[in-house]
Amino acid sequence: MAERRPIITLTTDFGEADYFVPAMKGAIYSINPNVEIVDITHHVPPHDIFSAAFTLLCCYKDFPKLTTHVAVVDPGVGSARRPIVVSAGDYNFVGPDNGIFSYIYQREHVSRIVHLSVEHYFRAPVSNTFHGRDIFAPAAAYVAKLIDWNRMGEEIADPVKFNTPTPTSVGRGIRGAVIHIDRFGNIITNITSAELTDDMIRAGARIRVGKHEATRVLTHFAEGGSQELFAYFGSAGFLELAVQRQQAARLTEARRGIEVEVIMP
Amino acid sequence: MAERRPIITLTTDFGEADYFVPAMKGAIYSINPNVEIVDITHHVPPHDIFSAAFTLLCCYKDFPKLTTHVAVVDPGVGSARRPIVVSAGDYNFVGPDNGIFSYIYQREHVSRIVHLSVEHYFRAPVSNTFHGRDIFAPAAAYVAKLIDWNRMGEEIADPVKFNTPTPTSVGRGIRGAVIHIDRFGNIITNITSAELTDDMIRAGARIRVGKHEATRVLTHFAEGGSQELFAYFGSAGFLELAVQRQQAARLTEARRGIEVEVIMP
Amino acid sequence: MAERRPIITLTTDFGEADYFVPAMKGAIYSINPNVEIVDITHHVPPHDIFSAAFTLLCCYKDFPKLTTHVAVVDPGVGSARRPIVVSAGDYNFVGPDNGIFSYIYQREHVSRIVHLSVEHYFRAPVSNTFHGRDIFAPAAAYVAKLIDWNRMGEEIADPVKFNTPTPTSVGRGIRGAVIHIDRFGNIITNITSAELTDDMIRAGARIRVGKHEATRVLTHFAEGGSQELFAYFGSAGFLELAVQRQQAARLTEARRGIEVEVIMP
Repeated sequence: MAERRPIITLTTDFGEADYFVPAMKGAIYSINPNVEIVDITHHVPPHDIFSAAFTLLCCYKDFPKLTTHVAVVDPGVGSARRPIVVSAGDYNFVGPDNGIFSYIYQREHVSRIVHLSVEHYFRAPVSNTFHGRDIFAPAAAYVAKLIDWNRMGEEIADPVKFNTPTPTSVGRGIRGAVIHIDRFGNIITNITSAELTDDMIRAGARIRVGKHEATRVLTHFAEGGSQELFAYFGSAGFLELAVQRQQAARLTEARRGIEVEVIMP
Repeated sequence: MAERRPIITLTTDFGEADYFVPAMKGAIYSINPNVEIVDITHHVPPHDIFSAAFTLLCCYKDFPKLTTHVAVVDPGVGSARRPIVVSAGDYNFVGPDNGIFSYIYQREHVSRIVHLSVEHYFRAPVSNTFHGRDIFAPAAAYVAKLIDWNRMGEEIADPVKFNTPTPTSVGRGIRGAVIHIDRFGNIITNITSAELTDDMIRAGARIRVGKHEATRVLTHFAEGGSQELFAYFGSAGFLELAVQRQQAARLTEARRGIEVEVIMP
Repeated sequence: MAERRPIITLTTDFGEADYFVPAMKGAIYSINPNVEIVDITHHVPPHDIFSAAFTLLCCYKDFPKLTTHVAVVDPGVGSARRPIVVSAGDYNFVGPDNGIFSYIYQREHVSRIVHLSVEHYFRAPVSNTFHGRDIFAPAAAYVAKLIDWNRMGEEIADPVKFNTPTPTSVGRGIRGAVIHIDRFGNIITNITSAELTDDMIRAGARIRVGKHEATRVLTHFAEGGSQELFAYFGSAGFLELAVQRQQAARLTEARRGIEVEVIMP
């Protein structure tokens, strides 16, 4: 059997029409031809660090251990923001220190963060507008080569984190937020089974979004009635709202950031 | 020379903005790192089983023998519909038993269909909404590992098939249907050279779609006159209608499902 | 360490919803399973040879030496236009002889161009509408197998070239053109640092596009003021115009082909 090749994933807001993504891949292969590159997505809305963080959160653990996840949504490119490499749990992460790994810091034991500062490991010359190609792609290629990280920069302990929206208790209910709308128009909230318990569901919890309410938390899509807005725990572990074969977000006018409420009878 | 790696292809309606596709790829590599994963498309219109079946039909044979084709357009996910793996001709197919392989059953000798039912070969826990990641991706990874299929489930003989639209004779002519509009606005019909023969073309067959007619069946695009709607047999073997460097579907208001008629003089 | 696999890149106007791109990949792997295929882009506007040439120009050198770049934007498919393979600098290029490699001919030493004419190396039968699958993909697979090019066709010396728009001097200033708008709405011009020198920048060069002017050529995005249209040399070496976190092309109504002027005080 052939040797296992290390995996590098890419999450960016570069789209797929320009030369940005292939330039990163070329830079990786030029340093380390012995890797597998997997696209997570390049359709992060431009400059939307939060969206990139969420998408990465939902799938980083599906990859083999020691996979290196590169995330480049980088509105501060060329400013003082630091390029970093992070060892957290069983995975490595490479990207700008702008909060893009906030969810990872919450969920994983962070054993090391290194500020990438040694130019020897950059593509030369480094452009001021495209560190994806010139700093992050090379760093990922070296990480996958098992380079000693101390050679690439100095350790830091103060990474930038953004506050991830957390559900709060309101009386016997919960106040949460919409954190994502997916391709099917399903509405993903920040509420998990830690907040909305089985007991609450059995007691008749209803989920309100805008002027609409889901009165049932189902376990299978197929149980949803025609035109019914229903809730369920999605494959990423979050409470979601959907209507069978329709765009629930369109029907309810839900969009990221708006409030979601769990109401107890 | 390096060893040939088995190929797994993916056809889905997941789009490329969410975490669905990379989660499937991560799940595959976690079980079988020694594969090549190729995207067929992830832009099947949501829930459009027929469109996925058509796209797969047009290219499954271009891959090396023993390629495993995974197709996940799965509006019935979480219901009683069966997950299956199919051995047909020189290829393997993995997906929901909802008719998505209907064209394959028509064209290939089906030697075996197994209902994937042994949970040991699923990702644990299995979500109720994302069998792409939890059942189909792992199954494909095991198939590419040459696992004995009997270990994954029991053989079945009654797969779901939809009726693929078939051209019919109307007098000396043919009545067919539009089955696809491609990126260039070319109109793909379900008529092949088995129905529209060389003799009929020489005798002056005209092709009507809506209020428009193609009066010539050409062999090369370059023969088409400026603004001329013309017909030709496309690279997937079907009769197509096009206008040079323009969107024929837009000009003729053609869309999938409408009638196409071959008229003899 | 595993053997380095040769890389084949793909640049097309095929989009990602149809079977065209996977059919090319299947055709490549059927001939040469031991390659790495990398997508540059498949979102070239339909039939836009110039746009494909530009995107390829911006990243072909980021790939390892001996990478084979396949570019298929081919409105003349099926006509007399020749399929060719080009050895230029450290890279190979495969595609139609319609000018798509014009930038490469300008920048690299062209050591050989072969007209692909030996049908033995085509997929059989060759369709009249899809040479990407039937001629170019197989040719790339053979090139990556290090086949003797003389077996695939005869050498030619008269490839088709289009005139790439070149900036001209106007008094003490420069007249150039917009050659691309990228995903972020940044405006890419055909002006390089060979024309717009450091001296000119220090002397106060202003850049006009439509009714708008950039009064500063910056080195870092982060220096741009809020709402300020500014200029900078982008990662592909061309002068670009941007507004921080906004779509400069939308604000200035810039589009490809319009004039850009460097005005000296």
